[in-house]
Amino acid sequence: MSSVKVGLLGLGTVGAGTVNLLERNNDEIARRAGRGIEIIAASTRHPERPRGCSTEGFRVTRDPFEIVDDPETEIIIELIGGYEPARELVLRAIDNGKHVVTANKALIAKHGNEIFEHARSKGVAVAFEAAVAGGIPIIKSIREGLTGNRIEWLAGIINGTANYILSEMFYAGREFGEVLAEAQRLGYAEADPTFDVEGVDAAHKLTILASIAFGIPLQYGNVHVEGIGHVTREDVAYAEQLGYRIKHLGIARQSEDGIELRVHPTLLPERQLLANVDGVMNAVMVMGDAVGPTLYYGAGAGAAPTASAVVADLVDVVRALNVDPEHRVPHLAFQSTALSDAPAMPMASVETAYYLRLEVADQPGVLADITRILGNSGISIEAILQKEPAPGADHVPVILLTHRVFERQMDEAQAQMEALDAVQGRVTRIRSEQLQ
Amino acid sequence: MSSVKVGLLGLGTVGAGTVNLLERNNDEIARRAGRGIEIIAASTRHPERPRGCSTEGFRVTRDPFEIVDDPETEIIIELIGGYEPARELVLRAIDNGKHVVTANKALIAKHGNEIFEHARSKGVAVAFEAAVAGGIPIIKSIREGLTGNRIEWLAGIINGTANYILSEMFYAGREFGEVLAEAQRLGYAEADPTFDVEGVDAAHKLTILASIAFGIPLQYGNVHVEGIGHVTREDVAYAEQLGYRIKHLGIARQSEDGIELRVHPTLLPERQLLANVDGVMNAVMVMGDAVGPTLYYGAGAGAAPTASAVVADLVDVVRALNVDPEHRVPHLAFQSTALSDAPAMPMASVETAYYLRLEVADQPGVLADITRILGNSGISIEAILQKEPAPGADHVPVILLTHRVFERQMDEAQAQMEALDAVQGRVTRIRSEQLQ
Repeated sequence: MSSVKVGLLGLGTVGAGTVNLLERNNDEIARRAGRGIEIIAASTRHPERPRGCSTEGFRVTRDPFEIVDDPETEIIIELIGGYEPARELVLRAIDNGKHVVTANKALIAKHGNEIFEHARSKGVAVAFEAAVAGGIPIIKSIREGLTGNRIEWLAGIINGTANYILSEMFYAGREFGEVLAEAQRLGYAEADPTFDVEGVDAAHKLTILASIAFGIPLQYGNVHVEGIGHVTREDVAYAEQLGYRIKHLGIARQSEDGIELRVHPTLLPERQLLANVDGVMNAVMVMGDAVGPTLYYGAGAGAAPTASAVVADLVDVVRALNVDPEHRVPHLAFQSTALSDAPAMPMASVETAYYLRLEVADQPGVLADITRILGNSGISIEAILQKEPAPGADHVPVILLTHRVFERQMDEAQAQMEALDAVQGRVTRIRSEQLQ
Repeated sequence: MSSVKVGLLGLGTVGAGTVNLLERNNDEIARRAGRGIEIIAASTRHPERPRGCSTEGFRVTRDPFEIVDDPETEIIIELIGGYEPARELVLRAIDNGKHVVTANKALIAKHGNEIFEHARSKGVAVAFEAAVAGGIPIIKSIREGLTGNRIEWLAGIINGTANYILSEMFYAGREFGEVLAEAQRLGYAEADPTFDVEGVDAAHKLTILASIAFGIPLQYGNVHVEGIGHVTREDVAYAEQLGYRIKHLGIARQSEDGIELRVHPTLLPERQLLANVDGVMNAVMVMGDAVGPTLYYGAGAGAAPTASAVVADLVDVVRALNVDPEHRVPHLAFQSTALSDAPAMPMASVETAYYLRLEVADQPGVLADITRILGNSGISIEAILQKEPAPGADHVPVILLTHRVFERQMDEAQAQMEALDAVQGRVTRIRSEQLQ
């Protein structure tokens, strides 16, 4: 059988990694797919620049639309990233009857509903394994491997940069800003790290995971997003003393009241596997009602791991080329006519435990005031850690772990605690999850 | 579209779990598959016995062949286990043009080549996700999620009973025999625990994993199998002092010299995720040349987790019902015409590090003799732990960790050490892996 002809949009790190992988493992891939896969054209804004792959076997152009309109290409790989022109290119490829493979989490999270609708009307596949957690086959595992389950929740470390920073803060006792600057020097973090450290990237990925887990439309706008910028070295150390690790998690949960979608720093018991995922690695824990907890771990970014997911999608699409569209795996795991309209829950109705750190005047009665406020709000305390004041300091940190409460209860209690004369500044508050 | 009609062979724990899961999550499953799935008949040797599921919706028979020959059934689920009559039933179902879903690791490991050949000739699918690691979608992940990779090695905790026993020995400091007896009382271990604790069950599963990872025919006969019966409480404790945990692993590795296939107790560095998989849980680490290390974790046995995998296979088969067989995912991940004939490597050529425990006379010069023998065999030592003799004992344990050597070097050195007058009895020897 002749090779499948592929057009590649974007020859950056992941694009070059994909070219290299298809070349290096050409034989293994064809032994699996039953057909060769051949890149016949690639686009880049800077054809003259040196890059990490050979471009000998295909033509290189500045114009991605030329590739999308080329009648020879059967599958388009979109690795440009961002919203535009990626969206326009993908829609045009679909219009031209081509299948699409993309690693673009922002595009799928924000425009996926439109893109999949369009793909259905044209009978083509849009595959996006590489959009979440790099090389980990998490989309496939949830979408095809757990189809017998009602998924109850999932929680994941889905941004490697944020996890690297928190790991360094834990192991080396360093401050956020210092580690971030180093990560930028080492190339782990982007020059503009906003997407990574403020949780936007994780929110894109969580949006996608939640849709395929629960059978709901993509709804990026409903994700509650907090970054890791306010987590201090002290909080990391106090959490450790209490037997916890702080991780930046994306969490999605479905209950009778609706769907929770949230990205925030989270305390996890140190024995949890997820608490032991360090450095730039990613991992996603998925709780199914039949299978129980499952976990998927691997590299969440980088040229070769992302290319691994791109090629897995390519092989899937190649296998399905001649398959009646209605027999393919649905884009969002559930049949498009069977998506649920479960509402997104406001954070006030979300239930978690809390880590609280208060800086209080070193005087009698303060702890009594704090515990009274918590008690009046129905919040019970699991652990208290009171530290000695630093030499010369007029205040002392008090750390509290609470049991699970609704966020609205904590909002109320926090306002009252901050109104106490003896409490200095804001209360630091980090959610805590047992993941059980 | 009408429901797909399924026949179920075996109404034991997993059979009842499958009936329950299809009933409970009927709606979620149909929303994903696009079609209902309906069990129309089930077989059991003891129809009169009470069981863990309702049998109201289908007919129950003593004769599994009646179900396999029923022209109404499109898919047969085989949950009888063992070699016969499972093999005969599966072959007959295939002859009758039916697709098969099975959880039977022994059957696939031993007769898979014959069964898949038969299935290809008849154009039907045989799915076996439930045969390895229960509910973890490990077959799918390797076979479809990592198709871009050359898989270098995989290592897994793939028998929950053995892992439960080793976990208890570690956390509670108890002896093997004591924990095993308790596991049997609790129902975690079979009345005849041979398959679990001697590694046969793990070897069945490793056989399957190695085939789909490397594209080789199933070759159960080539697996080197050691159980956990000789691991003592003391070895578990000494390993801990050296920073290691002892786990019962199935390991498969491909190199230029051939394929390693081995099941044995193994020391793992305590920071390894795999070293922290406790109790009855399973996990498999897979190293791909592009994706790097990935890990898959979950429940490896039990009614509901195994049913989760059975239903995932059912949904896959339902989706592929009208698909041209050549476009389906190949049974062993690689096209049947493209399997490799890489030879299985003899253990003498396998390279690992070692944990050694010798009981030696408490006299000068013994350690010098031991280190000389190791040195002469080209074995270098990473750590030595010498313990005080127990009160009244005339010998003392010496524990050594070596660097990686060929097993034949260690065989040679072991014989020489055991020939020393000062060394009492056999040398205890457990392989150690860094998994990097």
